Amino acid sequence: MKDKTLFSDIDTIAFRDGAVIMLDQTLLPGEEKTLHLTEYTQVTEAIRSLRVRGAPAIGIAAAYGLCLAAYGSGAETYDGLRADIMEARDELASARPTAVNLFWALEEMTRVLECARGAQPHAVREALRAKADAMACEDERACRAIGAHGLPLFRDGMGVLTHCNAGTLATVRYGTALAPIYAATEAGLRLRVYADETRPLLQGARLTAWELMRAGVDTTLICDSMAAWVMSRGLVDIALVGCDRVAANGDAANKIGTLGVGVLAKRFGIPFYVCAPMSTIDRDTPDGGHIEIEERGGAEVTELWYKERMAPRGVKVLNPAFDVTPAELISGYITERGILRPPF
Amino acid sequence: MKDKTLFSDIDTIAFRDGAVIMLDQTLLPGEEKTLHLTEYTQVTEAIRSLRVRGAPAIGIAAAYGLCLAAYGSGAETYDGLRADIMEARDELASARPTAVNLFWALEEMTRVLECARGAQPHAVREALRAKADAMACEDERACRAIGAHGLPLFRDGMGVLTHCNAGTLATVRYGTALAPIYAATEAGLRLRVYADETRPLLQGARLTAWELMRAGVDTTLICDSMAAWVMSRGLVDIALVGCDRVAANGDAANKIGTLGVGVLAKRFGIPFYVCAPMSTIDRDTPDGGHIEIEERGGAEVTELWYKERMAPRGVKVLNPAFDVTPAELISGYITERGILRPPF
Repeated sequence: MKDKTLFSDIDTIAFRDGAVIMLDQTLLPGEEKTLHLTEYTQVTEAIRSLRVRGAPAIGIAAAYGLCLAAYGSGAETYDGLRADIMEARDELASARPTAVNLFWALEEMTRVLECARGAQPHAVREALRAKADAMACEDERACRAIGAHGLPLFRDGMGVLTHCNAGTLATVRYGTALAPIYAATEAGLRLRVYADETRPLLQGARLTAWELMRAGVDTTLICDSMAAWVMSRGLVDIALVGCDRVAANGDAANKIGTLGVGVLAKRFGIPFYVCAPMSTIDRDTPDGGHIEIEERGGAEVTELWYKERMAPRGVKVLNPAFDVTPAELISGYITERGILRPPF
Repeated sequence: MKDKTLFSDIDTIAFRDGAVIMLDQTLLPGEEKTLHLTEYTQVTEAIRSLRVRGAPAIGIAAAYGLCLAAYGSGAETYDGLRADIMEARDELASARPTAVNLFWALEEMTRVLECARGAQPHAVREALRAKADAMACEDERACRAIGAHGLPLFRDGMGVLTHCNAGTLATVRYGTALAPIYAATEAGLRLRVYADETRPLLQGARLTAWELMRAGVDTTLICDSMAAWVMSRGLVDIALVGCDRVAANGDAANKIGTLGVGVLAKRFGIPFYVCAPMSTIDRDTPDGGHIEIEERGGAEVTELWYKERMAPRGVKVLNPAFDVTPAELISGYITERGILRPPF
């Protein structure tokens, strides 16, 4: 990158001095507050409250949360430590249901725990910490690779549409959907990025616009309902989104509104790519119909991000946090191993 | 209607005691404040600021605004009065560019003015007032007729999706897109209505949800980005929207996001109807490419309806207030003369 500090000074998720470090994303773009969490229960709360969000970042946060549980356990035997860690694992796993990366990361950590069976608690703690660090490092590497594999899809002056935030703030660094945009910018291409604001929680307005502008990318915020018009005017040449879970057949669960973007892209002949690390592909889920869709509280729709009410009291609200885009609408899956198509 | 007071106690737009009466829709649903405007410049401001909005209601408001100009003019000759009225007409016409009803209503009023050439100023004022009253009465009648013509499209238990507000609050009474919903409700059909919140100004959340709930209609608020998912789940049997201008070829300009709803309805095999009085059809505009699209300030997107900022300072914003849905996506046009198809 031209200016590495654009990325390296963002503490999406890290582990330092015995604490999980994360930027509280619920406060952006108004306030840049870094949290120092020392209890795994705080990490669970942070995931549930979206202080850290984005499928890959959630996975790393959960892995480091398990490290906190390990360091915080007073157990002096392997079995005692294991019991404490498994309790933490169950709680962390309950924080959000849709992103497969959360379960994948906890599974990887559990495997290390099982491999260390019978070891000294001190050694187990260090093994877990090393594994979490390796996963964080691998996430960063995978995101850079996603950027490199996506780069050939770009030309100077292209219009790019993205939905929600699948950037540095959704990963350890670089992002998934934004990684090719950063790679193209690094390569000297000038892109025009349209960021869907992404109701109800405005991750596009609050997070994507914030990090792209910080990196000097020409960014235009639009309401989600404007994507059709922007596409119909020929302003968009490619659409990129992140992903929370890819089923074996290619159906992709991602932030609510992604399905609409996929349908519109098809209508207007715009290539539509899902960007995600391989850990997002869930071969145990045959298709999108088998993915559990998180339903969040209606207040997220009616209360407008912690502000005064803007809908009638008592109004019913449907507020699915994700939708599923059928594989037929997806041009390809940009992963760290290249651009794939199902079966994977 | 089962309970006429559900509609008759809403002062969308009226003329009483020498004043234009309107509910300040910018304050809904939090506050029901009725404005009493005595200067036509206040009516211009009210239209520009969306205190009154909805193509038919804007037309009636402009007509009554012209009455205020006539009553407020101290001119003692026809020519003097005419000059004052034409000045007011030009200002009122500048308030919003997209809805054809505004220009149509001012044109109708100007015709009365010209027909009264040479008459006593008192008689001219009364003729204008009578014309405006007749147009208000005709709007209410047309909306009831739209409801009656749309009614056969409904069955008990159907799911209906609507975008923005094309209800009582957008007309003198009953609305356009909501008129068939009210007619069906009156006929004893139980409908499930999904109201798109309609960013950026949330007319669906603030206005449609408010008036439908007031009428006892089962109403669910969704973010605009959720329409695709709701449709894909089979929850929507018909989509109805209002309209600001229908071109001669059937292209329909309406609130931003309508194009997306049309594309999605096509994708999911859902009938998609545009509901509007005949005065919305603009035979002088050949197609949607010739319709001027109002672009409003970016703060409507970034400031979240008078609330604290929620996007980075300096972010660029594209904020078209309308989009154009091509005729091929429209199943029919529900008007007071029946369900039409182009050429009209």
